[in-house]
Amino acid sequence: MNIELVNTGSELLLGRTLNTHAQWLGRQLADRGCVITRQVTVADTAADIAAAVREALGRADLVITTGGLGPTSDDTTRESIARLLGKTLRPDATVLAQMENYFAARQRVMLDSMKVQALVPEGALVLPNRNGTAPGLAMEAGGKWLIMLPGPPRELKPMFTESVVSLLARIFPVRENYSCCTLRTVGLGESRIADQIAPRLQPLVGQGLVIGYCAHMGQVDVRLEARGEPAPTLIAEAAAEVRAQLGGSVFGEDDDRLEAVVLRLLTERRQTLALAESCTGGLMANQLTNIPGASAVLLSGLVTYANAAKEKFLGVRRETLQTHGAVSEAVAREMAEGARRETGADFAVAVTGIAGPSGGTMDKPVGTVFIALAAASGTVVEKKFNPFDRATFKELTARQALDLLRRTILAAKNPQA
Amino acid sequence: MNIELVNTGSELLLGRTLNTHAQWLGRQLADRGCVITRQVTVADTAADIAAAVREALGRADLVITTGGLGPTSDDTTRESIARLLGKTLRPDATVLAQMENYFAARQRVMLDSMKVQALVPEGALVLPNRNGTAPGLAMEAGGKWLIMLPGPPRELKPMFTESVVSLLARIFPVRENYSCCTLRTVGLGESRIADQIAPRLQPLVGQGLVIGYCAHMGQVDVRLEARGEPAPTLIAEAAAEVRAQLGGSVFGEDDDRLEAVVLRLLTERRQTLALAESCTGGLMANQLTNIPGASAVLLSGLVTYANAAKEKFLGVRRETLQTHGAVSEAVAREMAEGARRETGADFAVAVTGIAGPSGGTMDKPVGTVFIALAAASGTVVEKKFNPFDRATFKELTARQALDLLRRTILAAKNPQA
Repeated sequence: MNIELVNTGSELLLGRTLNTHAQWLGRQLADRGCVITRQVTVADTAADIAAAVREALGRADLVITTGGLGPTSDDTTRESIARLLGKTLRPDATVLAQMENYFAARQRVMLDSMKVQALVPEGALVLPNRNGTAPGLAMEAGGKWLIMLPGPPRELKPMFTESVVSLLARIFPVRENYSCCTLRTVGLGESRIADQIAPRLQPLVGQGLVIGYCAHMGQVDVRLEARGEPAPTLIAEAAAEVRAQLGGSVFGEDDDRLEAVVLRLLTERRQTLALAESCTGGLMANQLTNIPGASAVLLSGLVTYANAAKEKFLGVRRETLQTHGAVSEAVAREMAEGARRETGADFAVAVTGIAGPSGGTMDKPVGTVFIALAAASGTVVEKKFNPFDRATFKELTARQALDLLRRTILAAKNPQA
Repeated sequence: MNIELVNTGSELLLGRTLNTHAQWLGRQLADRGCVITRQVTVADTAADIAAAVREALGRADLVITTGGLGPTSDDTTRESIARLLGKTLRPDATVLAQMENYFAARQRVMLDSMKVQALVPEGALVLPNRNGTAPGLAMEAGGKWLIMLPGPPRELKPMFTESVVSLLARIFPVRENYSCCTLRTVGLGESRIADQIAPRLQPLVGQGLVIGYCAHMGQVDVRLEARGEPAPTLIAEAAAEVRAQLGGSVFGEDDDRLEAVVLRLLTERRQTLALAESCTGGLMANQLTNIPGASAVLLSGLVTYANAAKEKFLGVRRETLQTHGAVSEAVAREMAEGARRETGADFAVAVTGIAGPSGGTMDKPVGTVFIALAAASGTVVEKKFNPFDRATFKELTARQALDLLRRTILAAKNPQA
């Protein structure tokens, strides 16, 4: 089964907007055994959309489009495709009523220009939009299927989950077994990992295992894929081998995020956390609080950029700041211990470093960072050197700090066990 | 001039990795008058890469590929393309020496498996990689150009800026004028904006102006484009009209981010800021500290999730918490005033709300949020209702809070003026 994704939107080609749909839909589909074979982005002109959809329908069994269903002049997907397939567009009374309800519930006025979104090509199925006004549309055309989804992610995602998944199960019952497992590692390089695991996995590759590597900031994902009857066994065997080779560097699988793993460990142990962030500037707090349930674990996150804030909120001594400088092992230690003391948390993580682009010295160049972890068992401080751009520096430092926390939690006794 | 971008990587189609290259390269090229006409993602198998590059070379003057130049078994771009174009791959001594230096500088060992990255197709230009090992490659093929860039963003971006830009200027001197201006607005809906500005811009559309709209969380971008001799004048006139119609809702242009605008205003005024975040969990601090120079403005960001933290660090009264609840106008006010008092900042922003998915009540459903701003002129509190998923809730709330701050700064007297 071939699936092609056509993302429409000049803002995507002009680089004004990041295409998050390709990833999200790719993932959703792959997890159901349907892998996107090609993804294309075209401008939102009628001719480009029609050309891309025509080509895609020539190759694929299913074509999914995103975007161009809204009310403004550059929303041309609905009309281009109706014309391409020779279908008439007609206003749909149910859709119109749903749109009116949507606005009434939000105490907003529905403008006349909005009503174009209630036009439906003849014979198309309407996919309701719970989070916006333009519904999705699905239609058969010459034995192929075409599904049109709206552009805004918070409209597209629930629509996919609530309507498209069941539609796909009906029109394309999956025939082939597909298994995929991504093992997520932290702290090791891509080549190092490949060198270590590839020879051990060679026999399984002979049986159909496909290995993929993907390096992010401080993390490397090892993706294991297989198709057909023996796929689940093959994947399980390969995953066990990777875990055996890489040990504690594997922090999770598939969608696991390091911050979610840390939060889950602390939740299971009924332990609490405080953060004292200088150079990561709230990134760790933000990552942790993206996870539902963070409030049960994270007591407080203190973004103490200024020295005065380090003194006031964390009790870092002025003498320590003056003697060693804000970016030092001693200050990192006092920050972590101060955060733990002031909040009563079981663990406190502190980071202080030089994110750049300015502020570096000969002794402490841009990229220098100290990561401290205070726990009942004592305080450890690690020095790292992350000489990258500001965003990479922050991301990598946060990974390292969360990994130090993860390893420390795992090494300690579980008070709930 | 037609440009096609071919992103290679099964992890992109499987949705394991977000494709950020398409946006970044699209933007860089468009700003130089070269608009990507089509972007395609294919799996990292040799056959798929060769097919996509062959098709793209059939349509485009320039084809750029990303990914697949690394050392692991799924890195097949270099070899597929060399074979497609009938070029021999040869080890390049300079590249090999650079790779050896790269590892030596980082006190790491260069594994033998790495050396494949020093292979160069005959006749290709080598684009040095300052931030990694695999160099980029550029080659002419039948009057078309093909540029291969590495996958990791922190390698690709500097390589583009340092090598590709000058190469493009040499091989494709831009002939046509292209102007693009994006006006970024906050607080207004997409239809409302279109209804207000479209009739006024109609005469300019007749002269070649192209208008695009793009809605993000709480923000709508209005993109104005034109080509040819009169483009700059047309764009300037259109931008002035949009600004006249939308007034203070326009917070910036092009790449301006709301947090950067706020930071710039405060920097110019030599004023300082403190944050007290509950439900946004450090998102605002993180956004602000992504901007170089944040340390001169942001004194402290307090992520006070727990009530005890609100009392301890911000001086919120227990009585207020008990009487009104943590999510209330009174607590938001005390948080902002406390943050301002404890840090001595000129402005303090506080948010407290219910991000969900749980924690809502009849009176205060999920999505309820109070945003407070304390300044020398007094404290204002706004109640908002953002009934969305957790990430959207955080993002939208942060936008609203930063916009309240922006408008307050602009309304106040500039102490430096």
